[in-house]
Amino acid sequence: MSYFFKVKSLEEVMAMTGKFSPVETEKTQVSKAFSRVLAQDLIARKDMPGFKRSTMDGYAVAANSTFGASESSPAWLDIVGTILMGDIPKFSITQGQAAKISTGGMLPKGADSVVMVEHAELIDELSVEIYKSVAPLQHVIDANEDFAKQDIVLSKGTFIRPQEQGLAAGLGFAHIETFKIPKVGIISTGDEIIPIEEEPVPGKIRDINSYTLSGFIYEAHAIPVRYGIINDDPCAIEKTIKKAIKETDMVIISGGSSVGTRDFTIEVLSSLPDTQILVHGMSISPGKPTILAKAGEKPVWGLPGQVVSAMVVLKIVAIPFLNRLKGLEHLDKTIRIPAKLTRNVSSAQGRRDFIRVELTKSDNMLLAKPVLGKSGLIRTMIHADGLLEIGDHVEGLEKDTIVNIILL
Amino acid sequence: MSYFFKVKSLEEVMAMTGKFSPVETEKTQVSKAFSRVLAQDLIARKDMPGFKRSTMDGYAVAANSTFGASESSPAWLDIVGTILMGDIPKFSITQGQAAKISTGGMLPKGADSVVMVEHAELIDELSVEIYKSVAPLQHVIDANEDFAKQDIVLSKGTFIRPQEQGLAAGLGFAHIETFKIPKVGIISTGDEIIPIEEEPVPGKIRDINSYTLSGFIYEAHAIPVRYGIINDDPCAIEKTIKKAIKETDMVIISGGSSVGTRDFTIEVLSSLPDTQILVHGMSISPGKPTILAKAGEKPVWGLPGQVVSAMVVLKIVAIPFLNRLKGLEHLDKTIRIPAKLTRNVSSAQGRRDFIRVELTKSDNMLLAKPVLGKSGLIRTMIHADGLLEIGDHVEGLEKDTIVNIILL
Repeated sequence: MSYFFKVKSLEEVMAMTGKFSPVETEKTQVSKAFSRVLAQDLIARKDMPGFKRSTMDGYAVAANSTFGASESSPAWLDIVGTILMGDIPKFSITQGQAAKISTGGMLPKGADSVVMVEHAELIDELSVEIYKSVAPLQHVIDANEDFAKQDIVLSKGTFIRPQEQGLAAGLGFAHIETFKIPKVGIISTGDEIIPIEEEPVPGKIRDINSYTLSGFIYEAHAIPVRYGIINDDPCAIEKTIKKAIKETDMVIISGGSSVGTRDFTIEVLSSLPDTQILVHGMSISPGKPTILAKAGEKPVWGLPGQVVSAMVVLKIVAIPFLNRLKGLEHLDKTIRIPAKLTRNVSSAQGRRDFIRVELTKSDNMLLAKPVLGKSGLIRTMIHADGLLEIGDHVEGLEKDTIVNIILL
Repeated sequence: MSYFFKVKSLEEVMAMTGKFSPVETEKTQVSKAFSRVLAQDLIARKDMPGFKRSTMDGYAVAANSTFGASESSPAWLDIVGTILMGDIPKFSITQGQAAKISTGGMLPKGADSVVMVEHAELIDELSVEIYKSVAPLQHVIDANEDFAKQDIVLSKGTFIRPQEQGLAAGLGFAHIETFKIPKVGIISTGDEIIPIEEEPVPGKIRDINSYTLSGFIYEAHAIPVRYGIINDDPCAIEKTIKKAIKETDMVIISGGSSVGTRDFTIEVLSSLPDTQILVHGMSISPGKPTILAKAGEKPVWGLPGQVVSAMVVLKIVAIPFLNRLKGLEHLDKTIRIPAKLTRNVSSAQGRRDFIRVELTKSDNMLLAKPVLGKSGLIRTMIHADGLLEIGDHVEGLEKDTIVNIILL
């Protein structure tokens, strides 16, 4: 069997996210929904907060009772009651009347605004002087000011941050429909790779990729499932890949994807039933020998064995596919921040380069200092705070250029 | 008992992180160490990778065998063996000799560099033509190029990202000493607050803060422990606070910290044994009525009940204290990105303002659009992507000012 590298651009590969579908959905307690993705539209079943609510400690009034009030000419109002948080006022007020009210308290009928306690002075238990006029709804949250009944408050595909949890809680959704948390199978291949508990003899190195790749999967709020280290044996690789495809939603194989003498990943993937090779080679560096297959409905990745290449391809290329499986509407969640390059950087045309950079503060600007070193050196990723992406048609970037850095 | 707001600046409060100490440490499997904090220095026990390793498929050579080689005048070398990944070469090479080598393979004695397969042509099984010279160590990772024996590779207080996991794994640390994951107790107070499963009658609202605050604690890689909703009853509040202080590493009480008629948090905290009120009022908005106490060795927070205020104070003020408990060396992990303001924003002098902003893309610049709305409206945090911090001595910011946004 012979294979050619029909190298694909990053954009061509990214467009393939559309070939995959989100995982199944399930009911989730809203208290456990942080970092999940909403699988339903959330619709307000009632107005929120549902009643006029004071935002201050003070006096609930009809605003027009205070018009014209000032330090020199205060308005005199009669106090007809006191409202604490959680009370339902059993009285109403009319012009010339006021009710003591706490922050969060419900306005009585007839009141449309609140005078802050600082702008009033109690004369006795039954009367108060107001030194400043208020406008209708001032220091008040209106009954439907947060959300009105029938509003779509959150839509399907939304990443659930703490505030989305709180909103769902506030609307009374104790359970919400979310996408399941995808499982990602991780397989290390290579005869030179040994478990980390063992002492390497010369020629052998400990398994790093299983750990870095698992870490990035955790960081992307999914569940890594490690299948250990498989020797360069097509039968063993095939068996493990099949098992991982069956048990997880996406599979990542690291090592074995260069044009080396022991390149088995592509052969095994090509021989699997119901499996299509979508990508064999990408015009990015590091990461050119990346493989993407579709096995049934699941993405299967062959990542380069070099520790840095594997991390960069996972972060930049594979995580958006994971985000697709998670049901996210916006697949690219990388955060990019501007920084000033500290030196010239060269780049090959016709490919996307990702340069590791260290970020340091300087005045009001971050400085991005390229981290030198080969893509087999994990040290370079320890020193790196981010990745500098250099476009396919750019030959290089000059010192002092302002660039956008993808945070690591 | 009477209390005065001796309002403290954000910097004064932040300096108090030094009054607290990290939690205890424990051994952690490196595969589960993502997002934890290292509690030991990690020292390389051996060189890494420990042997000269090829970064390419090609031919291992002594570089000086290739000096002067070119397309028109190739160097002829004798092939004396083949090295696959994981092999220990049992032969050495001398000048004029070469060995086939795979990416990741160990160089034989006598070889110091690798000629890429693309720059060579096999003549027969025993000889190869080299078309390009290589320099010593070209396409080779030296034995101690990643780390040398005795290097401090990671220091105590480091946040463990995927690459730090991988490095520890590569150095053979299957277990590492980390700080424990702090537990954070969360208490909602207020007679108007009801469980989210209940249908609110007028005057009542569902508990939002327990959920938003828990979410932020998860996001900060700690463990929230919810103690439910406590009515405005000093005995019940005291009992719950004491229980939370006993069972967790930091306690957050939301509601009950304004100068309202039912302000019990400060009374209860003041009456606890071995407890000192450090902060009662901060010059930030939202969030002025924030309380910080030190109960024994643990921070106890009284956060404002308004949903937005509680979130802002947690994110900006309390999380750095949590990071201190976690053992982090750098307590401020907020990410700030520049954006251009879409309108004028006013701000009061003498306090730090945090304005919610929505971020949108425009050309090469993000636009920060202030989200209008009261701090009791969770909607404003749903629309917000970040917070704009305005300094104590700034009266306001003009449209088109470039500002740094704290991501939410």
